[in-house]
Amino acid sequence: MTEQQSKTEHVAEEEKKLTIVLFSGDLDRALAAFMIAATAASMAIEVTMFFTFWGLNVIKKNNGKIKAKGFMRKMFAWLNKGGTKRLKLSKFNMLGMGTAMIKKLMRGMKMPSLDQLIDMSHRMGVKMYACSTTCGLMGLDAGNFRDEVEPEIVGAAFFLGEAVESKSTLFIS
Amino acid sequence: MTEQQSKTEHVAEEEKKLTIVLFSGDLDRALAAFMIAATAASMAIEVTMFFTFWGLNVIKKNNGKIKAKGFMRKMFAWLNKGGTKRLKLSKFNMLGMGTAMIKKLMRGMKMPSLDQLIDMSHRMGVKMYACSTTCGLMGLDAGNFRDEVEPEIVGAAFFLGEAVESKSTLFIS
Amino acid sequence: MTEQQSKTEHVAEEEKKLTIVLFSGDLDRALAAFMIAATAASMAIEVTMFFTFWGLNVIKKNNGKIKAKGFMRKMFAWLNKGGTKRLKLSKFNMLGMGTAMIKKLMRGMKMPSLDQLIDMSHRMGVKMYACSTTCGLMGLDAGNFRDEVEPEIVGAAFFLGEAVESKSTLFIS
Repeated sequence: MTEQQSKTEHVAEEEKKLTIVLFSGDLDRALAAFMIAATAASMAIEVTMFFTFWGLNVIKKNNGKIKAKGFMRKMFAWLNKGGTKRLKLSKFNMLGMGTAMIKKLMRGMKMPSLDQLIDMSHRMGVKMYACSTTCGLMGLDAGNFRDEVEPEIVGAAFFLGEAVESKSTLFIS
Repeated sequence: MTEQQSKTEHVAEEEKKLTIVLFSGDLDRALAAFMIAATAASMAIEVTMFFTFWGLNVIKKNNGKIKAKGFMRKMFAWLNKGGTKRLKLSKFNMLGMGTAMIKKLMRGMKMPSLDQLIDMSHRMGVKMYACSTTCGLMGLDAGNFRDEVEPEIVGAAFFLGEAVESKSTLFIS
Repeated sequence: MTEQQSKTEHVAEEEKKLTIVLFSGDLDRALAAFMIAATAASMAIEVTMFFTFWGLNVIKKNNGKIKAKGFMRKMFAWLNKGGTKRLKLSKFNMLGMGTAMIKKLMRGMKMPSLDQLIDMSHRMGVKMYACSTTCGLMGLDAGNFRDEVEPEIVGAAFFLGEAVESKSTLFIS
């Protein structure tokens, strides 16, 4: 293999990689992130997702308990419980009515739910990582996250390493 | 043409392509998206824009009527009318006062309005597409959108195909 | 040096460049932007940051005075003072209590503050630019920004020039 061939293959491979940062914990943004991730995976694009700040709420276990240390972290964990069942629309939540309406419309159209999209993405090889800085800040560890999430908690350097190898990087805030 | 030449040209062409996803229906974010799109087009960068979720409000016809089927979609369409005239600032809307103020400041500085930016972008070849999943969810079709918007309603796979060919992809949420 | 070698070097260099647009003036989003910028700089990735709309609040001088002309700009400047000390969390600000709590947690974990991150980023060579369109709209000039910010106020064309040369471009809205 000549240097040129190796170069061409490197580019071809890079074209098949997508990195998504999900900073938001809103239902609509999480749906957009996972619709893109699942579709990309189905097109044989390698997908890496990073969840940071409020985005960690999307991958927290539903009905999981967070044993945060310290009064402030406990209060924060209580306010900011997370889990897909608790996510709200960023607009028109209307005390939960708007969110329930959108979920019902999605079911009516046989669209996959967020839980199904996360499961599908995982089965198709999408890698999901929690951000170490936010985990530290909020007192979270690998045990707080769904089974689809990778057990390693990673930092910004890991994300940047992925971004450098990706054709596109989306920051969903 | 050798393989190397063809490779170099491919890269050069790719450098001239930009994809923008507009997820937001806020006036300030729409202005940012179209200022970038119009400027890029003026620099001979090929631009594709995708409008999804609240971003569809930016490309809905002003004073258009949405004949959504079903009670929930009708209610949603009524709450979420859209059209450039109805967009608000994400901050300091202050019951419309802040939004009116910014528009007045823009006129005073002879800056193009959002409608003018959309028209300019279209004339310079920027392609605008509505997202099929959101259209399905909200009961919208091509007839609900401005004339500058492409008549085909496209899905995430089309967007990813564009992103893979683009030098930069911006997700404006 | 052959054309091929020059090509390979161009790609290698491009892989080392990151452009970040910060559109938001929220503390959490500003922290994410600067954590990424500082980490990238420490990995020898060249970083350019553009601050636009509410993002300008992040780089305004703390306790600086804005001499905006005209009643509307003055009112806007007063409402939208900015400076790192005034930024709030996008969620759970709770009249400032949530924001103070996060800052205290960060100090407890010996994490750098936003001011320290801006200083570190600047020392490591991250270039920060204010957007000329927003400066015009809000009546701001170079004198309103921190010393870490480049003195030239630049437009969307400059940003797009940087994006075209970058491996990744993040729009943090």
